[in-house]
Amino acid sequence: MEIAAPVSPTPRTVEDIFKDFSNRRNALVRALTVDVDEFFGYCDPEKENLCLYGYSNGSWEVALPAEEVPPEMPEPALGINFARDGMHRRDWLTLVAVHSDSWLLSVAFFFGARLNANERYGLGPIRSGVSRVSLCSLYSEALAQCPLVLRWLFER
Amino acid sequence: MEIAAPVSPTPRTVEDIFKDFSNRRNALVRALTVDVDEFFGYCDPEKENLCLYGYSNGSWEVALPAEEVPPEMPEPALGINFARDGMHRRDWLTLVAVHSDSWLLSVAFFFGARLNANERYGLGPIRSGVSRVSLCSLYSEALAQCPLVLRWLFER
Repeated sequence: MEIAAPVSPTPRTVEDIFKDFSNRRNALVRALTVDVDEFFGYCDPEKENLCLYGYSNGSWEVALPAEEVPPEMPEPALGINFARDGMHRRDWLTLVAVHSDSWLLSVAFFFGARLNANERYGLGPIRSGVSRVSLCSLYSEALAQCPLVLRWLFER
Repeated sequence: MEIAAPVSPTPRTVEDIFKDFSNRRNALVRALTVDVDEFFGYCDPEKENLCLYGYSNGSWEVALPAEEVPPEMPEPALGINFARDGMHRRDWLTLVAVHSDSWLLSVAFFFGARLNANERYGLGPIRSGVSRVSLCSLYSEALAQCPLVLRWLFER
């Protein structure tokens, strides 16, 4: 497995948020493509509620949801394993990809909210407004290049 | 309670996704401002895992999570009620606001993924690429005007 350069568990700059996003995305792309048979095998419907996690070190994992509630950060879709055997494999993978895309965005935006808070405390609201704009550009770029689901749509 | 114009439960155009997003957001802003005492009261830590939902008709609800797993669409943060009495009221509301912002984006992006799928089937990949760009613009605009959390940050 490729291990990416480490990113802070709570990225606090636009660049670190984007790096975190990219590493998580790369991990999820690998789970749904190169490692797809392994991923499929982990999602046993007989097991409890499972989630697909992409981590900022570039690794992925099928695991139980966070025990802490409310969770420290947004959680991916719960119980993906229960749908595995009731759908065509490709449709199920598309479903997981759509939820994973959605989760990637929610995580990036969650960190973005914290970034603005910190900036405001340190640098005041005007600077905060500026970084909100750059954060928007970041998300636009991420959205344009990101969707895991496009891989499935264009391969159909 | 103001009831907004209904939006399809599965919006399929950029305009409808934005309308859905705006209505949900308005609902959540109301829950966290005008209706905040009512919202606070619903989030009893003695109850089970609760979530704050903003609906596309402009209403909000504190309710148990969806029973269906994997869920039909992204779910908001689970168990917000458990943190209510362990934090300052303002910090807890900020936490809920940050998670709510993140959820709003994940829902919009979830619908966006479906929109591209439909367009691709109907109109081909070139048109699909065009609409991905307009969807990015939509998200940028939404991000620029959206964050619930900014309300809390600037009021501090």
